[in-house]
Amino acid sequence: MSLIPILEQHTIHKLLLVFDLTGTFVFAISGAMLGVRRNLDIFGILVLSFAASSAGGITRDLLIGAVPPSAISDWRYLAVALAAGLLAFFLPSPIERLHNEILVFDAAGLALFAVAGTQKALAYGLNPLMAALLGMLTGIGGGIVRDLLVAQTPAVLHKDLYALTALAGAVIVVIGKTLNWPIVPTAITGGVVCFGLRLMAIRHNWHLPSAQPTQISSALNKDQ
Amino acid sequence: MSLIPILEQHTIHKLLLVFDLTGTFVFAISGAMLGVRRNLDIFGILVLSFAASSAGGITRDLLIGAVPPSAISDWRYLAVALAAGLLAFFLPSPIERLHNEILVFDAAGLALFAVAGTQKALAYGLNPLMAALLGMLTGIGGGIVRDLLVAQTPAVLHKDLYALTALAGAVIVVIGKTLNWPIVPTAITGGVVCFGLRLMAIRHNWHLPSAQPTQISSALNKDQ
Amino acid sequence: MSLIPILEQHTIHKLLLVFDLTGTFVFAISGAMLGVRRNLDIFGILVLSFAASSAGGITRDLLIGAVPPSAISDWRYLAVALAAGLLAFFLPSPIERLHNEILVFDAAGLALFAVAGTQKALAYGLNPLMAALLGMLTGIGGGIVRDLLVAQTPAVLHKDLYALTALAGAVIVVIGKTLNWPIVPTAITGGVVCFGLRLMAIRHNWHLPSAQPTQISSALNKDQ
Repeated sequence: MSLIPILEQHTIHKLLLVFDLTGTFVFAISGAMLGVRRNLDIFGILVLSFAASSAGGITRDLLIGAVPPSAISDWRYLAVALAAGLLAFFLPSPIERLHNEILVFDAAGLALFAVAGTQKALAYGLNPLMAALLGMLTGIGGGIVRDLLVAQTPAVLHKDLYALTALAGAVIVVIGKTLNWPIVPTAITGGVVCFGLRLMAIRHNWHLPSAQPTQISSALNKDQ
Repeated sequence: MSLIPILEQHTIHKLLLVFDLTGTFVFAISGAMLGVRRNLDIFGILVLSFAASSAGGITRDLLIGAVPPSAISDWRYLAVALAAGLLAFFLPSPIERLHNEILVFDAAGLALFAVAGTQKALAYGLNPLMAALLGMLTGIGGGIVRDLLVAQTPAVLHKDLYALTALAGAVIVVIGKTLNWPIVPTAITGGVVCFGLRLMAIRHNWHLPSAQPTQISSALNKDQ
Repeated sequence: MSLIPILEQHTIHKLLLVFDLTGTFVFAISGAMLGVRRNLDIFGILVLSFAASSAGGITRDLLIGAVPPSAISDWRYLAVALAAGLLAFFLPSPIERLHNEILVFDAAGLALFAVAGTQKALAYGLNPLMAALLGMLTGIGGGIVRDLLVAQTPAVLHKDLYALTALAGAVIVVIGKTLNWPIVPTAITGGVVCFGLRLMAIRHNWHLPSAQPTQISSALNKDQ
């Protein structure tokens, strides 16, 4: 880190914050809309907004020892998440009609979180492999907690291609760090790759394969 | 903190512990009774007792970096939770009949946890907004984990007024801290406000509003 | 710890790693098979592999303040978990047929995790009671998170005798530490006791008692 000019560090910091808050807003919308559909009250909807937008980053911060997590110590994350939640609460129908636009913004949020999460994990000294996975986790963790809070299997575990696009962006950031590429262009490349892959996954309905069905009627005692 | 006389600090510490253990007992009862209803075995019931009573405080401690969390490092929390769990296991019917009394004690536990949780977060240097929210989380976190452990949407996200009463008590503690009010009277006021609001919410069946229903049959791909 | 010769410490460290990785593999298989049965895609299956194998240890490490957790900072845990997940993905039927063998290996993994988890908690200065419980948590935590991720009540809360066998092994390690028994024989004894009890629980279908059924139709408002 000491080789990066102070100015660039400052710019990166600013940029990361803007990215982070944008991603926070979009993910909070996805959480709030799920809360609306599940008939939660306004408090439940705001909790889902915050969880969907911040649980990934909070988990990453707990795992790398960055406590209190940014989403807790910086009020702006909360403010953005609550604003998104209130918007979805008072205007669910218009937002619902923006379905496709939201998917695009969600892809953008995923890209931003994956890149920013990877950079933070690298800054805390994690090895490249784990930094990339924590970047991915930053992107998908919010959605996982959001789904668990309404007692459903997280969409990311069985729906269309999502987590791998985040991982692709994260891996680019990690490679760039390893090869000493300039930070900002690397981050942008990682973000664009994730964003582009995700949009293509939506458009072409890309799925990962599932396992071959087996006759598993007498399932494992412990696992049932 | 340095301005608070040592004696008062000691008294507060003692007071907080008694409050904490009382709240632990009541919340553990609520966890154990849910386990009984879900036909869990004695181990599952004890796990729910401990989770319901301690998950809020453990989450708070993890988020503020107070590790190991009190509920882990101090055996008294566990002992109280297990005692409550065993009581509910061996005497489910009498406890069931105490339904209304339990709701009152639960309100007391909520008030105690919200106030104590806020004070701890403030002591760890969190900003007032987040300290209040972590106080609320201390109060409601156990119930959330308790419900998630039996795979149901947490009651606090869609039932009657609960979390906001905890937040009200927490906010009073935070305001008192900001304005340098004496600590003990402030804590008592915060607790009484939370307790009173919660009792009124139960009596008058206060609910938060839900979002207007929308035609959301084609729900978001990612969120379903 | 200062009384243990350097050599023995080194041996223990090596031994713990081998045990840990073996347990990781077996638990990852259990997670992957659940993912296969739930029709998750390959990513979801790998997530369940990793969660089932590592969530217990990660939770323990977060609670004792050992961040980043071993499962995050050491790539071998991840590699082993992914290998197990891929194996289950590509060969679900053969693995399914190994049902009984898997139960035996799972019992071994449980024993290894419980013993290693207890030792780590003791090394971080936790009191004996909590060290034993964290050892048990290391053993059962992965299965709990695995089940929660597919939105089902964790098997360990209501199925046959499982957690208590882990606790038995953990308690032996704690007693040995308190009485200054030699570390390796103590660990082996603890592991064998857990393993043996678990096999007997499977063979004889041992269950913990559930609470007496009650007329709980008008369940608690808050808890429902």
